[in-house]
Amino acid sequence: MKINNKLFFKKKKYISLFQILDTLKISKKNFKNIKLKDIKDIFTASRDEITFLNSSSYKDLINKSKSKIIITNKFNQKYILDKKKIIVVDNVLLSISKITNLFYPLALNDEFDQNLKNINLKKKIKQITYGKNVLIGENVEIGKNSIIGHNAIIESGVRIGKNCKIGNNVIIKYSVIGDNVRILDGAIIGKKGFGFFPGKANNIRYPHIGMVIIGDNVEIGCNNTIDRGSLSNTIIGKNTYLDNQVHIAHNVKIGENCIITAQVGFAGSSKIGNFVMIGGQAGISGHLVIGNNVQIAGGSGVIKDIPNNSKVMGYPAKNLRDFLKANK
Amino acid sequence: MKINNKLFFKKKKYISLFQILDTLKISKKNFKNIKLKDIKDIFTASRDEITFLNSSSYKDLINKSKSKIIITNKFNQKYILDKKKIIVVDNVLLSISKITNLFYPLALNDEFDQNLKNINLKKKIKQITYGKNVLIGENVEIGKNSIIGHNAIIESGVRIGKNCKIGNNVIIKYSVIGDNVRILDGAIIGKKGFGFFPGKANNIRYPHIGMVIIGDNVEIGCNNTIDRGSLSNTIIGKNTYLDNQVHIAHNVKIGENCIITAQVGFAGSSKIGNFVMIGGQAGISGHLVIGNNVQIAGGSGVIKDIPNNSKVMGYPAKNLRDFLKANK
Amino acid sequence: MKINNKLFFKKKKYISLFQILDTLKISKKNFKNIKLKDIKDIFTASRDEITFLNSSSYKDLINKSKSKIIITNKFNQKYILDKKKIIVVDNVLLSISKITNLFYPLALNDEFDQNLKNINLKKKIKQITYGKNVLIGENVEIGKNSIIGHNAIIESGVRIGKNCKIGNNVIIKYSVIGDNVRILDGAIIGKKGFGFFPGKANNIRYPHIGMVIIGDNVEIGCNNTIDRGSLSNTIIGKNTYLDNQVHIAHNVKIGENCIITAQVGFAGSSKIGNFVMIGGQAGISGHLVIGNNVQIAGGSGVIKDIPNNSKVMGYPAKNLRDFLKANK
Repeated sequence: MKINNKLFFKKKKYISLFQILDTLKISKKNFKNIKLKDIKDIFTASRDEITFLNSSSYKDLINKSKSKIIITNKFNQKYILDKKKIIVVDNVLLSISKITNLFYPLALNDEFDQNLKNINLKKKIKQITYGKNVLIGENVEIGKNSIIGHNAIIESGVRIGKNCKIGNNVIIKYSVIGDNVRILDGAIIGKKGFGFFPGKANNIRYPHIGMVIIGDNVEIGCNNTIDRGSLSNTIIGKNTYLDNQVHIAHNVKIGENCIITAQVGFAGSSKIGNFVMIGGQAGISGHLVIGNNVQIAGGSGVIKDIPNNSKVMGYPAKNLRDFLKANK
Repeated sequence: MKINNKLFFKKKKYISLFQILDTLKISKKNFKNIKLKDIKDIFTASRDEITFLNSSSYKDLINKSKSKIIITNKFNQKYILDKKKIIVVDNVLLSISKITNLFYPLALNDEFDQNLKNINLKKKIKQITYGKNVLIGENVEIGKNSIIGHNAIIESGVRIGKNCKIGNNVIIKYSVIGDNVRILDGAIIGKKGFGFFPGKANNIRYPHIGMVIIGDNVEIGCNNTIDRGSLSNTIIGKNTYLDNQVHIAHNVKIGENCIITAQVGFAGSSKIGNFVMIGGQAGISGHLVIGNNVQIAGGSGVIKDIPNNSKVMGYPAKNLRDFLKANK
Repeated sequence: MKINNKLFFKKKKYISLFQILDTLKISKKNFKNIKLKDIKDIFTASRDEITFLNSSSYKDLINKSKSKIIITNKFNQKYILDKKKIIVVDNVLLSISKITNLFYPLALNDEFDQNLKNINLKKKIKQITYGKNVLIGENVEIGKNSIIGHNAIIESGVRIGKNCKIGNNVIIKYSVIGDNVRILDGAIIGKKGFGFFPGKANNIRYPHIGMVIIGDNVEIGCNNTIDRGSLSNTIIGKNTYLDNQVHIAHNVKIGENCIITAQVGFAGSSKIGNFVMIGGQAGISGHLVIGNNVQIAGGSGVIKDIPNNSKVMGYPAKNLRDFLKANK
């Protein structure tokens, strides 16, 4: 099964560097026009793809990127070696957003999928069981023995594996789902993330060209909301179980065999290890790294990284034993 | 576009003062029967409308009200000048509820709207795009280029502006919505608030005759619940964005250009300024005033007013710097 | 109205003790084969039903159980008198789960109900009012003057009393609902609880053979999730009101006349008294006992039992006055 975002987002074959510079209102002096194939993060960009350095945390990695064209700001410019071509902008993320729009002109679209049809009218969907009023988009693939509940909406391009159970009123878009996955009633998977640039009259939204990727044997609870990634993907690892009313923001990566109880929330881009247990209503701030075998008590508010094998509790979350001692 | 609650609630033209006194089981002695046109708060009541004083916080304002007939209790009676006619009751709010019922006899009704039809059958809805199984009530107005998702329910009287995007499974009632508004999948807008008088056998519900008013360019996240007002309205100001699973109780007023992240909750009647940012899972108690440019950290519990330009964190929320210092 | 779980779960008439021992991989030596009728907790098990002792908290009660066959582990074996027949296992709960599966072989099934029909096709449903696209299972009973909203799903066996109002998009399964109950839009009632045995490759789910039982005059808010019980039932007492986005896990028992505001969450198996008030976003840990007339402030995290007539606040929740004093 192919799982790249071309399933969902039409990409322009090439964008020229001059078109990008025009869009960013940057002088073309000092630049030679070349064809660029895509925009990627520093880890995955190839020679003919553009990338960016927004935070100095990545200063040691940027020169290892295969990309030759890097967007950055005046503060981080100094970290980039001369062999790279540098475009200096005021707001790196806003520039990224504009360039993403050039490559993926339809990715800002959040309308409902107008190509849905009642599943009864789909000849290619076979060996599955489904309820009333199920709506299915174009190029959807659903593995055999899967079951789709009443009023479910599966938008175009979605991939669902074998032996899955999709509940009533579930909405799935921009997602690739493994085998033996259960998604319970009312869950909403794959909507764009809550990312935008605040503006006085109008906030400027940025395109979300990532997906949601859900591993085998996962269970997603009722009324969960799991947003798709912006440039990277939102990922739920194998055999991880989520209880009801959990919220997962864009770009979050959750490991395997985790147990996430009800009403937990994850802000954007955090990375959670394997075998992590999180109690009800706990909140995980954005851009954190939570290790393996971590236990986070219910109601905790996590605002910094947590090393492997830790147990934490409190707001802000600290060592569990210390918290309980201080709060006897 | 008219935006008063006559769109949704049929009002009796007049209720006589004697009918009100009978309902409240108050002696008609000392009163002359007059016709009253409506029940309003002290700010908006006119000469021939009845109003009330329940809390001494409003003692300096009550005598400036244009209303001549005021309901109050024995504790607050002394603040009201002799030129007003005073009705003294044991429970002001319960009395208000009963009088509201007289003026708006159908406002307690919370049933589903039985006048919905499939949008295909609506001749007057033009220049909009819509999905499958969309249900629309009577006298609904939807501006051009708006888009309505699959299974959406738009109840009678609702106004939706131009260029709006209403998601799948969204339910909207008793609401007036501006232009360029996006309401994402599964949001429920305009249900009555969680207000009632506890009773041993039966709680007594009070009528909610307010609306939800949503300004231009607002975004409402997936699975949000936004309740309509009781006597006043619930308001979301222009260009404010709400993330997923946010709850907004009745009578809350949120200013313009706010950013409210996922799973935040607002108890009833609080007033939030402009350019306020609130992190995930924070909670705002009822009847508070939050100033402009306030930042509230994720997970905080706000239990008192916050002045303009403050940054707060913690439960109960205090100065951000102090909190972080005390919790290093 | 019969309210036992035979409405929903087909039970095998008998399971032999030898079949149970084979399933648990326990030697049949020392046992005589007998027929067992069901699996129950120690309070309700009769002579020919099997029960269990997992926690030493119940050591004084186990010998009062009418059951003659008890599953326990080597730590708790010593508390059980010789007149009982004891089966010693490594993991009591996992064994219970396997035995439950023997008695109720279909109870692990979480698929959507395939026997739903559009309510228009149901001849037996009379004297009720209903919206568009309402789906009803087999053997559903709905009392007169009840009202069912658009797109609601009422699965097989569900009982709903008189004068109830079921909102739009509500999903109800494995539930018995009293009279004058209101269930607001988007609520999901009766899904299995979040209970399973973590396994490295695959978590092992256990069957939930309990129901949700909702008393007269209850109100359930929008987008609530209320899970059914595992061996016992999830219960909401008479005249209790729940606001929006509340989550109630399996086996929770909430008393009468409680007021539970928005976004509150209950972990599994806690027991809440009568006349309890809980503020927004508070969380109640699992297996707690909360007394009568308790008030829990919004945002609190309750991690131990609370006696009658207490007011608590904070995380972990403590005496309200002490908390406010310490946090001035």
